[in-house]
Amino acid sequence: MHIMKIDFKKELETASKGMIMIHDPHLLIKLIVRMIVRKLSIRHVAMILYDPEHDAYVLSISKGERGLKVPPGFAKFNRDSAMIKVFIRNEFKHLISDRNAIVTEDINKIIWRESIIQNGNGSKIKEVLHQVNDQMQMLNVEACVPAYFRDDLMAVLLLGEKSDGTRFDQEELDFFGALASDAAMAIRNAQLFEGLKAESERNRKLFIQTIIVLGSTIEAKDAYTRGHVDRVTKYANAIAREMSDRGMVTFNSSFFENLYIAGLLHDIGKIGIPESILNKKGPLTDEEYEIMKGHTLRGVEIITPLNLHRDVVHGIKYHHETYDGKGYPEGLNEDNIPIIASILSVADAFDAMTTDRPYRKGFPKEDAIKEIKRKTGSQFHPLPAKIFIQLCQKGMI
Amino acid sequence: MHIMKIDFKKELETASKGMIMIHDPHLLIKLIVRMIVRKLSIRHVAMILYDPEHDAYVLSISKGERGLKVPPGFAKFNRDSAMIKVFIRNEFKHLISDRNAIVTEDINKIIWRESIIQNGNGSKIKEVLHQVNDQMQMLNVEACVPAYFRDDLMAVLLLGEKSDGTRFDQEELDFFGALASDAAMAIRNAQLFEGLKAESERNRKLFIQTIIVLGSTIEAKDAYTRGHVDRVTKYANAIAREMSDRGMVTFNSSFFENLYIAGLLHDIGKIGIPESILNKKGPLTDEEYEIMKGHTLRGVEIITPLNLHRDVVHGIKYHHETYDGKGYPEGLNEDNIPIIASILSVADAFDAMTTDRPYRKGFPKEDAIKEIKRKTGSQFHPLPAKIFIQLCQKGMI
Repeated sequence: MHIMKIDFKKELETASKGMIMIHDPHLLIKLIVRMIVRKLSIRHVAMILYDPEHDAYVLSISKGERGLKVPPGFAKFNRDSAMIKVFIRNEFKHLISDRNAIVTEDINKIIWRESIIQNGNGSKIKEVLHQVNDQMQMLNVEACVPAYFRDDLMAVLLLGEKSDGTRFDQEELDFFGALASDAAMAIRNAQLFEGLKAESERNRKLFIQTIIVLGSTIEAKDAYTRGHVDRVTKYANAIAREMSDRGMVTFNSSFFENLYIAGLLHDIGKIGIPESILNKKGPLTDEEYEIMKGHTLRGVEIITPLNLHRDVVHGIKYHHETYDGKGYPEGLNEDNIPIIASILSVADAFDAMTTDRPYRKGFPKEDAIKEIKRKTGSQFHPLPAKIFIQLCQKGMI
Repeated sequence: MHIMKIDFKKELETASKGMIMIHDPHLLIKLIVRMIVRKLSIRHVAMILYDPEHDAYVLSISKGERGLKVPPGFAKFNRDSAMIKVFIRNEFKHLISDRNAIVTEDINKIIWRESIIQNGNGSKIKEVLHQVNDQMQMLNVEACVPAYFRDDLMAVLLLGEKSDGTRFDQEELDFFGALASDAAMAIRNAQLFEGLKAESERNRKLFIQTIIVLGSTIEAKDAYTRGHVDRVTKYANAIAREMSDRGMVTFNSSFFENLYIAGLLHDIGKIGIPESILNKKGPLTDEEYEIMKGHTLRGVEIITPLNLHRDVVHGIKYHHETYDGKGYPEGLNEDNIPIIASILSVADAFDAMTTDRPYRKGFPKEDAIKEIKRKTGSQFHPLPAKIFIQLCQKGMI
């Protein structure tokens, strides 16, 4: 049985086309190597893959018969390693030009030929070929097929013995060469994808981290809010999670991130309120209270340039609205108050009650819960309020 | 002369492999279409491309003889358009199954065949085919070749008449089908790339915008700094640009962004300083001055979680160091002060001098320049100081 039956070839070609849509380089080479082993009766196949981060070539995957496989990561080659430099240096390129691969059975032939030609590099070339031969024997490899993308060596496909014991013919090697170059392109594509994805995630994380810093600036002004932002964000998340888990509300996919951001920034508008009002040890005058109330709309102004999700804006703007419509800034009532704000309202009030303020000590947790219960349906939306009380009673807050 | 000479075919196949590395969908289809026109003597070629953003198929490119080309964007097709639905709806799929394309000369034949079979859909199918025929005539198209990625119709390749007047044979249509499906995959890949890139840029912009908001929070506390952060950032950028343009310093590629961020955040540490000190109308006591000086290290603490570039940290930390080593927080001197801080120092001092402070009116610009000149080599690093004075004298600041 000839291993290169035409339909295998076709199957491999079809498969190699799909490669380009796999954007995980390691999954990709795993699939390629597994396919070769399964379809082509080669005792084992491995791939050395270029790792741009470490500028090194790593044996990344090895599949096939037990005892022949090499553990991944076991072998690492730099640019000066014989197995690599024979494929990347111009002075060696003529050695593989007729077969587009290095095959064990050729090596002695080439060494002999090179010593006849004696082009000055003779002994150097012999030395490299001996080293390649040793490396191939160590890895149980019969043929090494390089995969280039443009002029860069992206990978080397390592082929073990064929199960039927026959030698690789040129048609087979050419086919593996084409396959390897498709693979190289797909790998490069996947690497670029991975890089871009990592960059995007880095930038997203940087944004969130900056929001955290921004949210905490208010704590620098207002000695009594130390940790307030963190706790409110945590309580609000717990309430929303529970509402969602119990199927009471279906939140859109970005709701939890928006709630998190809204929690971090709910008091950001206080940044413009004089410390003399914020930290006043005594009841505020009517005028001072009006200034204090301005923090919701001021908060919205501050974040406007960020063009954040509507839910975030609603959380900041309406977290002092009350269920009976007596809150601020707009006096919205019941379900006219966006749910994100009703959730934050409970979380915010609980934390305000349980921590010390400039003009009074904090209440015990139990008293705060009683207070939330008493004001459910007047100050607080019944749904998040009840959920919050239950979470407290279960000791989850 | 047969248009499908084997070397053209090979050339196209090679080219189609490279497609995957082109990550701009529009450039990609431009190359594909141009290649077909040039190599294959077809009078004009066009491509209808799926636009995921508008869920529509748009005639995106048209190349070939004058008078036959269609202006790009001219034709738009939705899923219900005959030209599209014939390729996506199951009830029509059998119509094209033998040729993998719709060819004008076949249409009447198919209409006739369908009316014989009379499978209930007969009249509906006839109607769609007549519509397709009209659309093809309007666009001067002889053959429409669909390009699928998995089950999605990604594109339709529109082929005009062949220059030699012969008809498309099946081998040619199959070849175009394969080419179109490679193209579809490359287009999908490019679209994913574009989407990921746009997302990364959005996240980066969001980060920078949040830094701007963060930087401006300090202005809410300190009435006298309105606009200070913006102006310092602008002056510092002008100084660095000029130093770089004149070849005095070679900055690394991210320097200008880092300088921008450092400018925005240089006073962020003041967020923790009581307003009574910040806005004091009179000289500070020694103790108050010590608190004020703490803003450089406090600023570094605030931004530590962001893990920003070292240059940003240096800008915030050292913008009050002086060339003679008498500054704070570390008393660094001369070139031991990172250049980013020396640049910010000049920009910061100039703006502080020229604007009103709680305890004095701002100086005229000319006096501030004189002051910088006088303190060059003691307070200020000579290089940015001289550049800044020259920029002022040229009226560029």
